[in-house]
Amino acid sequence: MESAILIIQCKDQKGIVAAVSQFLYFHNGNVQEVDQYIDSETGDFFMRAKWELKSFAIQKDHIQRVFSETVGDKFEMNFTLHFNDPKPRMAIFVSKLSHCLFDIVSRYYSGQFDVEIPLVISNHDSLKPVVEAFDIPFYHLPITKENKQAQEEKQLQLLKEYNVDFIVLARYMQILSPAFIASYPHNIINIHHSFLPAFVGAKPYHAAHKRGVKIIGATGHYVTEELDAGPIIEQDIARVKHHNTIEELVQIGQDVEKVVLSKAIKYHLTKKVMVMGNKTVIFN
Amino acid sequence: MESAILIIQCKDQKGIVAAVSQFLYFHNGNVQEVDQYIDSETGDFFMRAKWELKSFAIQKDHIQRVFSETVGDKFEMNFTLHFNDPKPRMAIFVSKLSHCLFDIVSRYYSGQFDVEIPLVISNHDSLKPVVEAFDIPFYHLPITKENKQAQEEKQLQLLKEYNVDFIVLARYMQILSPAFIASYPHNIINIHHSFLPAFVGAKPYHAAHKRGVKIIGATGHYVTEELDAGPIIEQDIARVKHHNTIEELVQIGQDVEKVVLSKAIKYHLTKKVMVMGNKTVIFN
Amino acid sequence: MESAILIIQCKDQKGIVAAVSQFLYFHNGNVQEVDQYIDSETGDFFMRAKWELKSFAIQKDHIQRVFSETVGDKFEMNFTLHFNDPKPRMAIFVSKLSHCLFDIVSRYYSGQFDVEIPLVISNHDSLKPVVEAFDIPFYHLPITKENKQAQEEKQLQLLKEYNVDFIVLARYMQILSPAFIASYPHNIINIHHSFLPAFVGAKPYHAAHKRGVKIIGATGHYVTEELDAGPIIEQDIARVKHHNTIEELVQIGQDVEKVVLSKAIKYHLTKKVMVMGNKTVIFN
Amino acid sequence: MESAILIIQCKDQKGIVAAVSQFLYFHNGNVQEVDQYIDSETGDFFMRAKWELKSFAIQKDHIQRVFSETVGDKFEMNFTLHFNDPKPRMAIFVSKLSHCLFDIVSRYYSGQFDVEIPLVISNHDSLKPVVEAFDIPFYHLPITKENKQAQEEKQLQLLKEYNVDFIVLARYMQILSPAFIASYPHNIINIHHSFLPAFVGAKPYHAAHKRGVKIIGATGHYVTEELDAGPIIEQDIARVKHHNTIEELVQIGQDVEKVVLSKAIKYHLTKKVMVMGNKTVIFN
Repeated sequence: MESAILIIQCKDQKGIVAAVSQFLYFHNGNVQEVDQYIDSETGDFFMRAKWELKSFAIQKDHIQRVFSETVGDKFEMNFTLHFNDPKPRMAIFVSKLSHCLFDIVSRYYSGQFDVEIPLVISNHDSLKPVVEAFDIPFYHLPITKENKQAQEEKQLQLLKEYNVDFIVLARYMQILSPAFIASYPHNIINIHHSFLPAFVGAKPYHAAHKRGVKIIGATGHYVTEELDAGPIIEQDIARVKHHNTIEELVQIGQDVEKVVLSKAIKYHLTKKVMVMGNKTVIFN
Repeated sequence: MESAILIIQCKDQKGIVAAVSQFLYFHNGNVQEVDQYIDSETGDFFMRAKWELKSFAIQKDHIQRVFSETVGDKFEMNFTLHFNDPKPRMAIFVSKLSHCLFDIVSRYYSGQFDVEIPLVISNHDSLKPVVEAFDIPFYHLPITKENKQAQEEKQLQLLKEYNVDFIVLARYMQILSPAFIASYPHNIINIHHSFLPAFVGAKPYHAAHKRGVKIIGATGHYVTEELDAGPIIEQDIARVKHHNTIEELVQIGQDVEKVVLSKAIKYHLTKKVMVMGNKTVIFN
Repeated sequence: MESAILIIQCKDQKGIVAAVSQFLYFHNGNVQEVDQYIDSETGDFFMRAKWELKSFAIQKDHIQRVFSETVGDKFEMNFTLHFNDPKPRMAIFVSKLSHCLFDIVSRYYSGQFDVEIPLVISNHDSLKPVVEAFDIPFYHLPITKENKQAQEEKQLQLLKEYNVDFIVLARYMQILSPAFIASYPHNIINIHHSFLPAFVGAKPYHAAHKRGVKIIGATGHYVTEELDAGPIIEQDIARVKHHNTIEELVQIGQDVEKVVLSKAIKYHLTKKVMVMGNKTVIFN
Repeated sequence: MESAILIIQCKDQKGIVAAVSQFLYFHNGNVQEVDQYIDSETGDFFMRAKWELKSFAIQKDHIQRVFSETVGDKFEMNFTLHFNDPKPRMAIFVSKLSHCLFDIVSRYYSGQFDVEIPLVISNHDSLKPVVEAFDIPFYHLPITKENKQAQEEKQLQLLKEYNVDFIVLARYMQILSPAFIASYPHNIINIHHSFLPAFVGAKPYHAAHKRGVKIIGATGHYVTEELDAGPIIEQDIARVKHHNTIEELVQIGQDVEKVVLSKAIKYHLTKKVMVMGNKTVIFN
């Protein structure tokens, strides 16, 4: 069934919820989900409402304008409107590791993700057969120090060509340039293979093994300019033991990585994650 | 700071959220927390709103009436109003096991629970010194088949005398009579030492050991007539191994029991749990 | 590197560990892993030892006989010997659900499972393309009440033909006959989509939703004649909320199912699981 | 029942397990638990064996000498011998926070910890009534920059006087001097209120809140000279949400802290933890 999702972010003011609720009520909106959050520290207000389009009084194409004129402008709201048709378009970036890619493709295949995957981009060609087995175009763009800028431009061109809405770095082992990141603000999701902020940077499982931790983890976050420092969307952990080798930590960790990344994608797809400074609000 | 909590339960109807929000807005309510849930299966609507009393236009004593007249009656709402002053009064029932009692008293002592504990009732006297060390009156009412009804009447009399709002069975090893339970509907919280509905009834750790499960658990629930079948408030688990004896399961399980029971109490105290048939809605 | 694993099960007797250790020491065994467990209730002794074959004094083909004559017979040991070359051969049975199959194939593809997958058998043909994309033979054997016995005979014939060592039921929605089960004792691994012994049988997520549990789970176990009652190898859980629909429980549960099943397979492959009555000993 | 525990640490050599097993077998040891670990990276060998004393051929007072002469010296073993009678003596250091103290005392009270608690030392006097309610001597030794050295000397004198074997810092908010730490090597257990190595140092919950993590944790570790960098014994975590205030993180975290600290104490008490460089081996 077709539905609309309204995402609002603004300064908290008396009467906001009343105004939004009235808007939906007057136009005969059959509300299915509604969540608010008031951050007492910053005074910020966040809201997510989902309702059926079928019986709604306003035509799909006019909702944005009518809401803006009757409610949004008055409260100086930052708001976005989302529909589940057409489906959002997600690009996947990979290197050589396959576990996250498999997990995403598996959910895509079974219909768990309401998304299109128009292309996969990789700096290696080893995962090409997997990707093409699922009829997804695969682009091999190897990265060196010298060609990095040129290749990023090609990537951006491809993303534009395929109308990509957001990007998932499924263990893509390259650092993106600030310019690239700026092209998809809060629309690039990365999985870091540690429980951030522990073990920032390269080889976190080696660092975890050296420190002798009893728990390892993974972090799904939006990519920002500062490495591994963007807003955290989801984290999870697994227990490890003294006898686990680094290779075993890697294997144990991969089970966490893939589930965490897929949860982060799901929150992003269903518009349940909102960015608040360098943190996230998750309506779950 | 003094605040009010409004808990609403009724059939879902268009305009409910708008009406409640308008009510709070018109009377200058500074809303701190607001949650709704619409159960698509049953068509039930649940809402919890918390706001500051200080700047609210309606006097504390009149809120119930004004809300009822202007909003509640119209939507045929089942609603209750709660204030954090005076504190709710919680009775604890125990037998011989001390871990849950200690945990509750520890939180009470440190101010984590915004509650009064006017009395502890037990069918044994072994925990009397612990309870009295914290200046809480302790009543020893031993239970036998013969005296059960008479003792329950004494218990009810004590609860009335001490103005008790709700009861926590902190590993109280007696089954309460239907009449007793009916005196405190959805106001008796029990901790069952298994992951319900697995291992209903007596000696769940023995049963878990026999079945060879790899995980044990505990369940905090409201007591209803049917044994261990009331609405579940909170559950948690712990991993166990083949080499764990029943005695070790008991010890591992106690760590889960006490945390689960205390979480259930916290939800109940902060009015974050609502009963929906034989299930609960938790606004957390 | 080639290594040997010795698995011992017998009545606990003084001198067992000494005898086995002496055997390995005298024949120059470079022990890498060794675990014992003495069950104080049953008086059973369990041991697993892994050592390098390269420098071992006894030829690979003679270890069984020499150990039996010098140690095994004396203590009336039930023992088995395992080598990592050739790889064990695992058949996968599926129906329509793809998540467990994908997860297993993903690990197989990345080399995480040291196993051969000679064939996949299904009562539906929907997963044929996925399986064949990985160059694994796929057999479609639809099951009806009438043809069940005949089809099981065909399955057994295929398993024999392909030299299958053990079978994984990756959400195979058919109940196997006692005769079939008896052909692979403790060599059929099933994933049940509940936290056993809660919600035995069909539609456990529906039952979990109805009961209002706050945690759902999955159980990897050996298949025995009694439905969902075989020795548990691994279990895990995920938290759910009042607002999760049955469909969401299914999706949340699938993430648990696939990880639990793959862990159970890993334990089985590395000979870390031993059966003790209707329970398991896991040397992990 | 009286039992002995032998803890061995040395370079891995062929024949070690055989020699130790023979020793126990020849002297009629009824082995209850035995664990080994060979660290393939460092080539270190670790062993823990527990057996009944009753039927053992060697008198309790002679085991150390006989084992040393017949086995220990030959393999240049670092070994210690432990008996459960008399009980180990544990001192607790606290400041103002009560949750860990309550948890420890609760286990002590119920017999879950096989230990004596001869005294509690604090730099504040607020927890005096709690401690004295359990008939444990309480020493109030306030710490300032000026008197720190003198007070530590008094502490050490008290510990000596009371024959203390090891010390638990149950949220003791003071940094111990290197000299103090050197007096109890690997015998001071601290609970740090973060998932180390994330958020080392003061106010980890504030740092966690600022970073917007979705999971917080606690770490039980041995105290070494470098702050929060000693060998980790146990860690655990709890999920948090965007709406949790710092105060709520503190409360949620305390539930993790107390359970982690008590597990670390239990491992230490039962000699299941061995130090390997800056890591631990846990035979659990």
